[in-house]
Amino acid sequence: FTVVFIGNDAEIKKVLSRHENLDYTRIEIINAEEKISTSEVPTLAIMKKKNSSIVKGLKMVRRREAIAFISSGNSGAILVGGQTVVGRIKGVVRPALAPLIPTKKGSSLLIDCGANLDARAEMLNQFALMGTIYMENYFNYKNPVVKIINVGAEEEKGNILVKESFPLLKNNKDINFQGSIEARDIPYGECDICVCEAFVGNVILKLYEGVGKLFLEKIKKSFTRNLLTKIGALCTINSLKKELSEFDASNHGGAPLLGVKGIVIKTHGSAKRQEIKNAVMQSIKFYDNNIEEKFAKGIAKLEEERNENE
Amino acid sequence: FTVVFIGNDAEIKKVLSRHENLDYTRIEIINAEEKISTSEVPTLAIMKKKNSSIVKGLKMVRRREAIAFISSGNSGAILVGGQTVVGRIKGVVRPALAPLIPTKKGSSLLIDCGANLDARAEMLNQFALMGTIYMENYFNYKNPVVKIINVGAEEEKGNILVKESFPLLKNNKDINFQGSIEARDIPYGECDICVCEAFVGNVILKLYEGVGKLFLEKIKKSFTRNLLTKIGALCTINSLKKELSEFDASNHGGAPLLGVKGIVIKTHGSAKRQEIKNAVMQSIKFYDNNIEEKFAKGIAKLEEERNENE
Repeated sequence: FTVVFIGNDAEIKKVLSRHENLDYTRIEIINAEEKISTSEVPTLAIMKKKNSSIVKGLKMVRRREAIAFISSGNSGAILVGGQTVVGRIKGVVRPALAPLIPTKKGSSLLIDCGANLDARAEMLNQFALMGTIYMENYFNYKNPVVKIINVGAEEEKGNILVKESFPLLKNNKDINFQGSIEARDIPYGECDICVCEAFVGNVILKLYEGVGKLFLEKIKKSFTRNLLTKIGALCTINSLKKELSEFDASNHGGAPLLGVKGIVIKTHGSAKRQEIKNAVMQSIKFYDNNIEEKFAKGIAKLEEERNENE
Repeated sequence: FTVVFIGNDAEIKKVLSRHENLDYTRIEIINAEEKISTSEVPTLAIMKKKNSSIVKGLKMVRRREAIAFISSGNSGAILVGGQTVVGRIKGVVRPALAPLIPTKKGSSLLIDCGANLDARAEMLNQFALMGTIYMENYFNYKNPVVKIINVGAEEEKGNILVKESFPLLKNNKDINFQGSIEARDIPYGECDICVCEAFVGNVILKLYEGVGKLFLEKIKKSFTRNLLTKIGALCTINSLKKELSEFDASNHGGAPLLGVKGIVIKTHGSAKRQEIKNAVMQSIKFYDNNIEEKFAKGIAKLEEERNENE
């Protein structure tokens, strides 16, 4: 495959020149005269900055000149652009950003963590289906367990959205829905696909990050307190690193925007080369497994059933 | 003060008999013939089980026979009972459960974590005010910083509820509102009062618990891996315990239900005697500082201003 770098031409060349033995026949550079910063309002930025790397990259995906667009940039702009520039798969009400989060058992898909807030029940049902197709075809999960994030385990609990989503999920024969999950059980990996609306997903994703970071700081502080703790740290650090490294979801690449016509992947803003490489490999696997086509078929079937029931 | 134990008479006596030198002039026992289990539907349980400890205790608060009711039981039943049996302070649209969560700087109030979902903007504004009065009068915070939990730091971000709440909070002169907080900054204590609706609050509270618990398990596992790590653990364990013990909010007692006519405190279901003792001391301090009266005045002023603006 070929990698296309979009951005400031001179800067890209400068970075590339630091590496020897690059196969330039597999690299293409496209200059982007404009830049969308992380603080810009997404919808405006996408409309106005046609020469930004985000708009240029997404246009290449729409025209099928590229199979995937990967970015560490302004999340909102990538999400808005994914919907408006690339476009939705027919029948998809709203594409969903679906990162993997680390759990005790491995990782779970958290869907939706996007920028579109105030979701409806039918969207959550589509998220559950797309999440299932993704986990089955990408990670080879057999019959992945879907749960909806809720304030209690019982069916009668929940806010209006959860209560309205519950019967749809229960009647969806193409997913393995097993009820509610409370937030305290998410880190224990009690389901493969955690369904929620984007506000809640965003809170979970960021809180996970924040609590994890603070814990690491606390461990570090307690290890460097005095000579004894420093000796202790030397004896345990490798074991601890091994244990905690499993708790790093960036091993899997970035978060895909599921439901768009093509592949759009958002990595962390602070992504290092390992995460970007993984996101590239992720795109190729996503493409090779025809996941977009499977989404289209699954969503079409779901919409058909919905129309029959109405 | 006198402590009233409500529950199975024989069991209470049995537990008390294990302790020597108890001052029985300060202890009263009230038998409760019924029991509300944690799996019961709260509204039904409160209506039907008039002889449960929860209903009996809350009735004592309503009749001002007790200044406070403390329970580790069914959260939903305590919350519903707090509203229906004890009753709301005049003007309070909805009482809010407000636990403290541990942060790097100490602790922050998370309001609301209750059972009433699908809140409105005016409720969030009242939560912010009650949270401020509580933190000022109970913990002696000067001008505590209020932020609303949001998906981004910018004012234009948020779901409908956040967008509607923002101007109310901004115009509320009796709070020190400083905009949005993202979930990743909550553990760092970037505000004293985190305002959110109960679904989000519930997710935050439980995820905090779950991630913390898993981290501790992972540390333990990495410490017991082999002889070397066990030696290392011996050298670091006290330092680590000291560091992490600060990260334990149960030091402050339980979560008060703010906005009811009296004091209702919910402790963890797994609360040990230290937490219960702290909850008792918390009740007395709450009472001595006339917080209920201050809530009533603050809410009345807020409602007055709201009527003037309409």
